Amino acid sequence: MSLAHGRPYLAIPGPSVMPDAVLQAMHQPAPNIYEGDIVTLVEGIVRDVKRVARTEGHVAIYIANGHGAWEAALSNLYKPGDRVLVPATGRFAHGWAEMAEGLGLVPQIVEFGTQSPIDAARIEEILTADTAHEIKGVLFSHVDTATSIRNDPRPLRAALDAAGHPALLMADCIASMACDEFHMDDWGVDVALTGSQKGLMVPPGLSFVFFNDRAKAVRAQMPRVSRYWDWVPRSEPEFVYQYFGGTSPTHHLFGLRAALDMLHDEGMEHVWARHATLARVVWAACERWSEGGALKLNLADRSLRSHAVTALGVGIGNGQKMRAWTAENAGLTLGLGLGMATEEDPHGTGFFRIGHMGHLNAHMVLGAVGVIEAGLQALQIPHGKGALEKAAEVVAQPEAVAF
Amino acid sequence: MSLAHGRPYLAIPGPSVMPDAVLQAMHQPAPNIYEGDIVTLVEGIVRDVKRVARTEGHVAIYIANGHGAWEAALSNLYKPGDRVLVPATGRFAHGWAEMAEGLGLVPQIVEFGTQSPIDAARIEEILTADTAHEIKGVLFSHVDTATSIRNDPRPLRAALDAAGHPALLMADCIASMACDEFHMDDWGVDVALTGSQKGLMVPPGLSFVFFNDRAKAVRAQMPRVSRYWDWVPRSEPEFVYQYFGGTSPTHHLFGLRAALDMLHDEGMEHVWARHATLARVVWAACERWSEGGALKLNLADRSLRSHAVTALGVGIGNGQKMRAWTAENAGLTLGLGLGMATEEDPHGTGFFRIGHMGHLNAHMVLGAVGVIEAGLQALQIPHGKGALEKAAEVVAQPEAVAF
Amino acid sequence: MSLAHGRPYLAIPGPSVMPDAVLQAMHQPAPNIYEGDIVTLVEGIVRDVKRVARTEGHVAIYIANGHGAWEAALSNLYKPGDRVLVPATGRFAHGWAEMAEGLGLVPQIVEFGTQSPIDAARIEEILTADTAHEIKGVLFSHVDTATSIRNDPRPLRAALDAAGHPALLMADCIASMACDEFHMDDWGVDVALTGSQKGLMVPPGLSFVFFNDRAKAVRAQMPRVSRYWDWVPRSEPEFVYQYFGGTSPTHHLFGLRAALDMLHDEGMEHVWARHATLARVVWAACERWSEGGALKLNLADRSLRSHAVTALGVGIGNGQKMRAWTAENAGLTLGLGLGMATEEDPHGTGFFRIGHMGHLNAHMVLGAVGVIEAGLQALQIPHGKGALEKAAEVVAQPEAVAF
Amino acid sequence: MSLAHGRPYLAIPGPSVMPDAVLQAMHQPAPNIYEGDIVTLVEGIVRDVKRVARTEGHVAIYIANGHGAWEAALSNLYKPGDRVLVPATGRFAHGWAEMAEGLGLVPQIVEFGTQSPIDAARIEEILTADTAHEIKGVLFSHVDTATSIRNDPRPLRAALDAAGHPALLMADCIASMACDEFHMDDWGVDVALTGSQKGLMVPPGLSFVFFNDRAKAVRAQMPRVSRYWDWVPRSEPEFVYQYFGGTSPTHHLFGLRAALDMLHDEGMEHVWARHATLARVVWAACERWSEGGALKLNLADRSLRSHAVTALGVGIGNGQKMRAWTAENAGLTLGLGLGMATEEDPHGTGFFRIGHMGHLNAHMVLGAVGVIEAGLQALQIPHGKGALEKAAEVVAQPEAVAF
Repeated sequence: MSLAHGRPYLAIPGPSVMPDAVLQAMHQPAPNIYEGDIVTLVEGIVRDVKRVARTEGHVAIYIANGHGAWEAALSNLYKPGDRVLVPATGRFAHGWAEMAEGLGLVPQIVEFGTQSPIDAARIEEILTADTAHEIKGVLFSHVDTATSIRNDPRPLRAALDAAGHPALLMADCIASMACDEFHMDDWGVDVALTGSQKGLMVPPGLSFVFFNDRAKAVRAQMPRVSRYWDWVPRSEPEFVYQYFGGTSPTHHLFGLRAALDMLHDEGMEHVWARHATLARVVWAACERWSEGGALKLNLADRSLRSHAVTALGVGIGNGQKMRAWTAENAGLTLGLGLGMATEEDPHGTGFFRIGHMGHLNAHMVLGAVGVIEAGLQALQIPHGKGALEKAAEVVAQPEAVAF
Repeated sequence: MSLAHGRPYLAIPGPSVMPDAVLQAMHQPAPNIYEGDIVTLVEGIVRDVKRVARTEGHVAIYIANGHGAWEAALSNLYKPGDRVLVPATGRFAHGWAEMAEGLGLVPQIVEFGTQSPIDAARIEEILTADTAHEIKGVLFSHVDTATSIRNDPRPLRAALDAAGHPALLMADCIASMACDEFHMDDWGVDVALTGSQKGLMVPPGLSFVFFNDRAKAVRAQMPRVSRYWDWVPRSEPEFVYQYFGGTSPTHHLFGLRAALDMLHDEGMEHVWARHATLARVVWAACERWSEGGALKLNLADRSLRSHAVTALGVGIGNGQKMRAWTAENAGLTLGLGLGMATEEDPHGTGFFRIGHMGHLNAHMVLGAVGVIEAGLQALQIPHGKGALEKAAEVVAQPEAVAF
Repeated sequence: MSLAHGRPYLAIPGPSVMPDAVLQAMHQPAPNIYEGDIVTLVEGIVRDVKRVARTEGHVAIYIANGHGAWEAALSNLYKPGDRVLVPATGRFAHGWAEMAEGLGLVPQIVEFGTQSPIDAARIEEILTADTAHEIKGVLFSHVDTATSIRNDPRPLRAALDAAGHPALLMADCIASMACDEFHMDDWGVDVALTGSQKGLMVPPGLSFVFFNDRAKAVRAQMPRVSRYWDWVPRSEPEFVYQYFGGTSPTHHLFGLRAALDMLHDEGMEHVWARHATLARVVWAACERWSEGGALKLNLADRSLRSHAVTALGVGIGNGQKMRAWTAENAGLTLGLGLGMATEEDPHGTGFFRIGHMGHLNAHMVLGAVGVIEAGLQALQIPHGKGALEKAAEVVAQPEAVAF
Repeated sequence: MSLAHGRPYLAIPGPSVMPDAVLQAMHQPAPNIYEGDIVTLVEGIVRDVKRVARTEGHVAIYIANGHGAWEAALSNLYKPGDRVLVPATGRFAHGWAEMAEGLGLVPQIVEFGTQSPIDAARIEEILTADTAHEIKGVLFSHVDTATSIRNDPRPLRAALDAAGHPALLMADCIASMACDEFHMDDWGVDVALTGSQKGLMVPPGLSFVFFNDRAKAVRAQMPRVSRYWDWVPRSEPEFVYQYFGGTSPTHHLFGLRAALDMLHDEGMEHVWARHATLARVVWAACERWSEGGALKLNLADRSLRSHAVTALGVGIGNGQKMRAWTAENAGLTLGLGLGMATEEDPHGTGFFRIGHMGHLNAHMVLGAVGVIEAGLQALQIPHGKGALEKAAEVVAQPEAVAF
């Protein structure tokens, strides 16, 4: 007998749970891709996805995953030999830096470990020292999916400004967009990018590069940009097929339309507040568990934590055991620890992650922490008591969250 | 901001949560209804739905809800003026009795209230007294969806046998089939009926009347049976359209095929054990809550409780408030109290029900009790502490359940 | 190699082709059935399905197929021993008469064969002779799905009026509703019934009984009506569950809502005109084929033909061969001949039917006649030439059809 | 009144009609992307998509459209400054050459117009003259979607061999794969590429680059390849996420699995034969129409025509009118003329294309030619008679097609 039979719940940090309305919208015949409804469909999506990023700038949409967006953004702005600065707070910053290397760029990684956010003062120092302005871009993760650290873009903007440095500020918002508060224009981010499968609640396969006029001007100076990644025809198309450099991703567009309607019907401020509150539900449980034992939140300081994903340590081997137990016994799939290897735990078996992004309500989250409590009991992992009541308390009396 | 945005969870006692495989299977073009695949489809369903009821007898499948099955079963066996005995442990027994009256039968209700099971001794007494064998059938709810009382069919069989009474034993298994253990043949039930939308996990719209050779013989003596309800062509069809007395319910059949595959792949014993355990999860929480306050399980004795639905009292007005709160704030829809009106609470506002039937796992149930805990806190309904940990404990260390 | 691989096309006279929007709408979780959106959903459906029947009267919706609607309508109006008159123009009139017999009524069949419509003069004669008004109802098929004869309700109304006879005029519109023009109120029909799976474009499983105040008054005089069929609570419910005498057919309601939106967005007059024109497309081909050979339309007179289905003879054995050929070689499923048995052809193998009802456009119909042409050629069935160009001509230059 | 209401039929040359099984398979929750079923899912897809291309070589699958596959293939094999030869028989060869330019390569276009295939002798001449082997690749369209010309890869292979030239032979099979016969290994093609949305019957969003060991060896010599396009980790992954250089396109994989099952269940030889025969159905009609008037097939020689798409001229303005007429009046969407502009007709309004690829049967194709016939009549475009009967004749008596 297994208690896993039932509607499975996927709590990994992406893909997130797809709303029924999204999957429904994708279940229809292919449309004409040259004329007719497709034109207004794409135009509306361009308009409304920019409202999610809070930008009046531009967007290029790619049939690609987030790694594609990384490459696309870099391809439009930098040529082989160009230097980029990459403050790192987890595995994904390193991934972006590798992507830059693959294009012949010269990334300079500034390492902040897996438990501290970017120190903007350190970045300002480096930028100030770069009087020749050889650094062309600053690439950072708004939220690093591996460590769940959330980096505030504002101090980075201030650092660039204080240093009087013209490098572009580029934010990887793959894990955070439509979960954690983000205002591209107001916060001075020049380029932001994201994927479809997390806060946007659409199956993986689309990614988005938002850019402002400063970035556009840099692109205009590029001697050559690969046709597939070139954002010019994608953001200023004469014909509809240029939005996607060829055939449109018709069914993803149907799904995305439904998802954008849901987000804007709820209101972005409400979406962010919901994520903030549900993250607190998870934290309330985790903090209580950690009082009594082995479990440890990756980040002690709440203000550094993403509202979309939580990384946890539970002792060598226990992360892996926990994930197996919840999947086999309770219908809950947790995320594995990524980039958390240590000398004692070279495969990161002591970690797991809870994804709490996208189409998410109190029932789903309270169910997840309930199952983890059961797992801690079953696997006899020492843990503090009263975690679930604390979690329920946050649902019962959510703090006001203002944006 | 509402924490209800996300995948809604419906925890009413039917319709239950439909598996994705069922909805997927229903999303296809209509088939030919006169020949081809439909023939083997229906034959396989007939075979496999009888395995759910644990009978080698017969089944007639109706395009109808459970109320239709009530009428169908009675229409095949009784003529105006016939007497039937109806031991009642909740609203649904009364509903069936009304259906009998609508057909001109004479139901004799034996009332056991809303908190006690049927007393088989009392039934035996009545049957023994009926030396003329005027009572033609004994109609009872295996589980009454309103009170969540589970009545054991075996003592009733024994009562009939002890009284040497030929009346047919008829079980309403609408709320219990494929949730609570049931062996039609072994337990001596002559007629059993159910609907598609609970343990069978298919949208409402199909119902099933299972009958054995004794019931078949009674039907054979009937002077006239309405063509639509007549189970003879439906259970012994010459042509495929006779299974449904006309056009087949094609899409429901597609869904039912998927659901039966899921049930038999899991194994009926495992399905029952899962329901038994998940019911204990709900009870563990409820019993703890009830220690400290207003909340009260309808049935104190665990052995009388259904594994599919739990009825609770929380104080006048509070049932209604709780249901509104969980739907608006947490994405959880609870069932309303049915047939629980009292003089002080004429609209039954003090009750609610938790459905825990069908496509159900530990995550779903722990989420439901987590939300109810939040509701008790938010609405300041006095309740005992530690309920959620107790619930998680059942998931962590399920008792062995044998059938 | 088979040319049947591809999107199959079902051209049987029901179920018809389900629109994607309908199947999409049905692919969603079950809703609460006691409160919330379900209430407005059902109310809207009641309102809009009456607009399809063109009645300001009442409707009871049943979870049942068309045979259920037959029984439901009779159950509300007649008691055992009551006489009903059944003018017959095909198998389905006989089916309804059998249903009446099953309820203990005394149907009097007036046979008009399979190639002539009802002769209203003959009906008037019978009614005039029934001075005691023993005949309580006149039951006829607006369109008989087997013969494809369309009977005009107006002369029947006139016959009743001329005879001064109070019997109710009851129309079986299962095959015709939302295909062939129909105005229940204006044409003086007292009771009309239909199913979900033809012109209404929803999977089989729902049926509808429309009735006017005259019929309602007759119902009010009935000593007893079966609870499941009783249309009183279904048409004047106090609580939402009464619409369906128990659990609502939730997913069919979702689908029906989508279908009604499609019908009323197009406009009923346009829907009827489309069916009228597409029927002419089929006829143009069939008439040309019949010039040169074996193929014969069941009805020579266009004004007698349904716009929803066409019955054809092609010579003993050839109907069956044709159906097998088109399914195996071209992806087209044709309807079998029903109720067309003769002494020489006891299994009706010489007939087939083309369903052209519901979600239907010129491409679908021209494809169907194209495949039949190929079948005539492949099976070497003698046939006239130029049929397909004639069919295309109707699409190229449709006659104006006014309602 | 419009005869377009009904199931729309999209006969453009991609996206093709998606099978219900594919859309159904895509309608499910997201899976875990790091472990579990995803691993065997991708492995099976890799195996089975190679069987479609008839190669025992390698494949890299990209989240991208066909244009992405163009760039991916070039990115793995050539560096800025490398020369590639591009024999052109339509717009898409030019598109690929532009993609090469965008990467800094130097494409040499050899123009064969829009009505002639590649002349292999001319290619051999050029290759023979390139004694320094500066030409690194020969890029051609197996089928050019714009002109519907089908180029046989075998003479090109022979030309390379005769010239003793080491350039890689690269085939764009986007429009032809799983429609027109193709044997990558046997025919000596080094690199082949395709997309998901045509013969593979899956929504746009995936593309495929197949390559043999020769191409792999060339890749191994590349100094640097962009990380996203690099086919090494995609074809020799250590971890499942490397197949897609990041997040997997989960829902496309579900759909592709269903589509590959359909193709291999039918058998590739049968799939090709079906396309060959259905193309002949289209041609039979078009050739007859062209006898009497304005309509003209782009290619007079049947052996040069693709089995997946047919390009037609109908006189200036008429192509555009025809497409509008069939969409508005009959539910048929035809493809527009691409790359067919002439001096007199600078917008190519005189052309249209019929897509006949993928999930396709005789009913669909006969419906399409039936609607075009109606359009020719309605728009009074002169045309030969008897076209539809000729088309039906091909279905009735298909020639044997052997591969």
